[in-house]
Amino acid sequence: MSSMLESYAAGRWFRADDEGAPLRDATTGEEVARISSAGLDVAAMVEYAKTVGGPALRDLTFHERAAMIKALAAHLSSDKDEFYELSTRTGATRRDSMVDIDGGFGTLFSVASKGTREMPASTVYVDGGLEQLGKSGQFLGEHIYTTRPGVAVQINAFNFPVWGMLEKLAPAFIAGVPSIVKPASQTAYLTELVVRRIIESGILPEGTLQLLSGSASGVLDALTVQDSVAFTGSAHTAGILRSHPNVMHGGVQLGVEADSLNASVLGADVTVDDPEFDLFVKGVVTEMTVKAGQKCTAIRRAIVPNAMVDTVIEAVSDRLAKTSVGNPANPDVRMGALASIEQRDEVRKAIASLQASSDIVYGDPDSADLVDADYTVGAFLSPVLLKARKGAVEPHDVEPFGPVSTVIGYDSVDEAVALTGRGKGSLVASVVTHDPAVARDLVLGLAPWHGRILVLDRDDAPESTGHGSPLPMLVHGGPGRAGGGEELGGVRGILHHMQRTALQASPDMLTAITGRWTRGSKRTVDDVHPFRKSLAELKIGDTIETPARRVTRDDIDHFAEFTGDTFYAHTDEAAAEKNELFGGIVAHGYLVVSLAAGLFVEPNPGPVLANFGVDNLRFLTPVKVDDEISVVLTVKQVTPRRSADYGEVRWDAVVSNQDGEPVATYDVLTLVAKEQPTP
Amino acid sequence: MSSMLESYAAGRWFRADDEGAPLRDATTGEEVARISSAGLDVAAMVEYAKTVGGPALRDLTFHERAAMIKALAAHLSSDKDEFYELSTRTGATRRDSMVDIDGGFGTLFSVASKGTREMPASTVYVDGGLEQLGKSGQFLGEHIYTTRPGVAVQINAFNFPVWGMLEKLAPAFIAGVPSIVKPASQTAYLTELVVRRIIESGILPEGTLQLLSGSASGVLDALTVQDSVAFTGSAHTAGILRSHPNVMHGGVQLGVEADSLNASVLGADVTVDDPEFDLFVKGVVTEMTVKAGQKCTAIRRAIVPNAMVDTVIEAVSDRLAKTSVGNPANPDVRMGALASIEQRDEVRKAIASLQASSDIVYGDPDSADLVDADYTVGAFLSPVLLKARKGAVEPHDVEPFGPVSTVIGYDSVDEAVALTGRGKGSLVASVVTHDPAVARDLVLGLAPWHGRILVLDRDDAPESTGHGSPLPMLVHGGPGRAGGGEELGGVRGILHHMQRTALQASPDMLTAITGRWTRGSKRTVDDVHPFRKSLAELKIGDTIETPARRVTRDDIDHFAEFTGDTFYAHTDEAAAEKNELFGGIVAHGYLVVSLAAGLFVEPNPGPVLANFGVDNLRFLTPVKVDDEISVVLTVKQVTPRRSADYGEVRWDAVVSNQDGEPVATYDVLTLVAKEQPTP
Repeated sequence: MSSMLESYAAGRWFRADDEGAPLRDATTGEEVARISSAGLDVAAMVEYAKTVGGPALRDLTFHERAAMIKALAAHLSSDKDEFYELSTRTGATRRDSMVDIDGGFGTLFSVASKGTREMPASTVYVDGGLEQLGKSGQFLGEHIYTTRPGVAVQINAFNFPVWGMLEKLAPAFIAGVPSIVKPASQTAYLTELVVRRIIESGILPEGTLQLLSGSASGVLDALTVQDSVAFTGSAHTAGILRSHPNVMHGGVQLGVEADSLNASVLGADVTVDDPEFDLFVKGVVTEMTVKAGQKCTAIRRAIVPNAMVDTVIEAVSDRLAKTSVGNPANPDVRMGALASIEQRDEVRKAIASLQASSDIVYGDPDSADLVDADYTVGAFLSPVLLKARKGAVEPHDVEPFGPVSTVIGYDSVDEAVALTGRGKGSLVASVVTHDPAVARDLVLGLAPWHGRILVLDRDDAPESTGHGSPLPMLVHGGPGRAGGGEELGGVRGILHHMQRTALQASPDMLTAITGRWTRGSKRTVDDVHPFRKSLAELKIGDTIETPARRVTRDDIDHFAEFTGDTFYAHTDEAAAEKNELFGGIVAHGYLVVSLAAGLFVEPNPGPVLANFGVDNLRFLTPVKVDDEISVVLTVKQVTPRRSADYGEVRWDAVVSNQDGEPVATYDVLTLVAKEQPTP
Repeated sequence: MSSMLESYAAGRWFRADDEGAPLRDATTGEEVARISSAGLDVAAMVEYAKTVGGPALRDLTFHERAAMIKALAAHLSSDKDEFYELSTRTGATRRDSMVDIDGGFGTLFSVASKGTREMPASTVYVDGGLEQLGKSGQFLGEHIYTTRPGVAVQINAFNFPVWGMLEKLAPAFIAGVPSIVKPASQTAYLTELVVRRIIESGILPEGTLQLLSGSASGVLDALTVQDSVAFTGSAHTAGILRSHPNVMHGGVQLGVEADSLNASVLGADVTVDDPEFDLFVKGVVTEMTVKAGQKCTAIRRAIVPNAMVDTVIEAVSDRLAKTSVGNPANPDVRMGALASIEQRDEVRKAIASLQASSDIVYGDPDSADLVDADYTVGAFLSPVLLKARKGAVEPHDVEPFGPVSTVIGYDSVDEAVALTGRGKGSLVASVVTHDPAVARDLVLGLAPWHGRILVLDRDDAPESTGHGSPLPMLVHGGPGRAGGGEELGGVRGILHHMQRTALQASPDMLTAITGRWTRGSKRTVDDVHPFRKSLAELKIGDTIETPARRVTRDDIDHFAEFTGDTFYAHTDEAAAEKNELFGGIVAHGYLVVSLAAGLFVEPNPGPVLANFGVDNLRFLTPVKVDDEISVVLTVKQVTPRRSADYGEVRWDAVVSNQDGEPVATYDVLTLVAKEQPTP
């Protein structure tokens, strides 16, 4: 790391030539680095992303992009020491750094896995089912997601310099959109180091990741309708971004994750002897002290039954008293420093505001016993617990971005929900109860106000990742004051970077556009049974049409006896007659699909390795005695697995009777070798 | 209808006591009604919606709400004559009115059908699959949508006074959110009449629909974080709404559908002799003349290969010349009047702007041959076709909201995509081609810029609903200049009124909250086989645990011979040995599920009527010779059908081997009678 942080812009490292602003070690106050973007051509970065990074990414499939993110995760994970070392200077303990650094790399792995398993090996994502828009089936509707030909600008907060960057980068990348990352200045030195290692690795195509160290001013001026800004930070800055003309009128998409007064609610069923009581108390203390409470998801409000307020305060205070504060590099320390002296000043101001209607019951904003650290130079702050007076307003409005929480009493579920709602929308709430009815009432009341809710009890606690941890497979974000944005959530977070479009077309056109065979479009029947074709040889639309097989009463009787499925509709003529859906003996659904397999399977060893499943099986018309069934089986989708010598083939199966009526439709899922087996 | 339009506010009809503003017949200029909201307490309407309408709606399930919308559609459809009669005064021909009136009622039917078929009989909608967050399966993640406890304010455009109201009302209602409808003044008399009939019908619970006739000023001041505004209208007004403090900082959700310069692109493959040429020309003419071109989705830009520009202009002009313009009540008239003289003035201004870079090749903005109408009093305008000069800017920027379109030439697919993108985001594009490769290239290029794309060719044309018609099962809206909003799209449009929340909890808690059994949560085994319980008696979690059955080599041989499925993995020891996935003879997957049914089925007539399908069948572990399989079958979800004496029961099925390993998991779908059959 240079003492002046650099930007990675338009294919080269750029260093501002002014003096920049100093960034200081949270513990010692020493200068770590300087930062400036003076002279940086931000518009050129946007142009570079669009002309170099975007086209490179859009040439790749979702799977190819996901593989790069996975490789990146592995690469970064292999050499974490220097990140941990530098992270300490932000005030983070080792535990804090783990959340940021390992949490960030874990997010890369997870998003890559979702992109591989839940998206196709192509560039078009199909959303939902087919809509038949006309009677003949030649006019269909289907929704697709395609990649926006723009740039994703990511303006991150200071508290997670690694995770914050990676959790936004990975979904944009897999969606096919290049990123410009702008870290918050205070901890930008750690982001810069990680970006440096990413660029050096050469894993991501050039132009798909750029770094803007310093002021982002001017970047919105360069954005247009296909571009997006994902912002994590204060509501104040969010308001400035929202009012930019390119957001107001220019179609730039803005996602915001801002202030959030998250609550943890203790169920009225919980007594001091229940394990849930300890879980609640531990949760509050953990969220106050991890990252010194500098987490958007931390518990700012502990909402507890009135009768439990003092008990909770006592228990939380006891635990806080055991929390050592001081030099984050010292392994005995549980809580490090805030990110900067300025940040501490902000938190003290917030505490003073809270005191208008709440009383401090633990801690002192102006002093702390420190381990191995100097209060006069480091940004240290004691954990501070407050108790809200009746009708208090400030705890629902003022966000102290540090180790501060307020205990608030409630009388009824309705009041608990109403109090929580006074936060005007939050990222996360936790509900601590072992009573399913209490959980249901609280969760359904709180859900419209939250992006995530943790229900914590003795059952899930051993594996719970806690109130404060967003997980990559779950959405992160919240309505209202929390910003209204949404990130992560597996494929959901990837799709936020893509445009959903309703297509209306004939089946053949839908097949051509989506790369997935659409029922009604052309089928190709040739001399080779498709089970004899390797993954490389199979084409979308390859079809086998089988001869017919008569289903006799003997077959049905025999199948009933053999399997033990003697349901009356298959065995008892008189009773079956009375069933209005059948009006007589019918073949078992399982018999129909078993016989269908007998019709379409090619028995000899070949590229088809196994049938691993069936989707969306529907029995449409009963198969009566002496009906003749035949099958049409068509290659619908081919998905090579990158890490295996085979892939998945999804087949469209239609079983019809002698009148051409479909009796059963389903997808058959098989594993097929990429190449013909060597004899 | 009174001559002063009324508002339906807080449970009563309100009439302003000032003079109001006159609304004039588009054809004759006569006054139809007056409009004013002077003295209306808009904040009280918001409060009423939240305290009366919202709670009433949230007490109902999705299915109950959908049934009301369906009943409303039937009720309104039974008595359309007065709507048609009044609609004529807006300048609409009978064909125009059909799009608005029947189109609106059809939308109610469609959205109600989606809400019934694709949503559960409850108030919580589950989104996507379970995420296992810990190794033991006791810490799970799942996403739910819940109803926002707010109000949906709908500010509609003048061009579709019926459809515009209903397409927004129905999704909000089924989501559980009460609506306040604010029609555009010019045609508010038709909306008021329809609302009057809705209120009289008593079908919708009180407080779930209110009407604001007149100015909406002040309504945004009364909205907060759980409220939303859906606006259709000009980009200018949209900008004013976007800058309101309650939208900027207060968390009010704003959805906008604004100006849109929709394009129809003629593929380079199409010759004048292809049916696609006529389809293209007809499309342009239809979109210019239906509703006198006053449609957000109309074709403003006809983008055609340079070599075809003059041919297209000639063909479009020929057709336009046959389009009679005049009194919309006259059945010989194909195109009626614009909605008002003011509207015509706006369109003339837009045409003048277009002339900066385009030349009029058909029509005259200042005169028209009229049938049965007076040009000096009615808001009539001749269709006007323009031809863009090279490099023209205005056709991509100026929206003439009337019977006006501009023909623009292109040389390559890339240029066609780039030209279309210069509209900065549109509601819809059509691509007219019979070549799948051309369709794919154009559609994938255009999709990021559009909410809907119609691919029109000889195959889907006979059933196509055309370029300009949004359909309720497909999303409607577009990025960028088109406003960035999204409506309709079946369940998608309903979910826009709900909050998505990630839940983290134990299986038991998820079951309690979602009302759907979650794998890993408690199962109830009692003396009664669950197939003997009626829908009314079945409880979520009711389970049957079967005895085990050994699967012998004889069984496998026999099944192979009987069904004809002699795949080598089931029949050829040596070959099966070589298959790395199996390493020896395995039972057919279909044999496993057939035997499983034999284990869990209760054979005698009872409430279970039929197995109508299987979902998500996955074979997890091969069943080897002499393995012993058993089944655990659990009630997962119960969905009564309103119009039948049975409902659907979804069962969770797990087939395990003698070591307790799951070998197959799936959902079994059955129809079950609501009550025990009478003997």
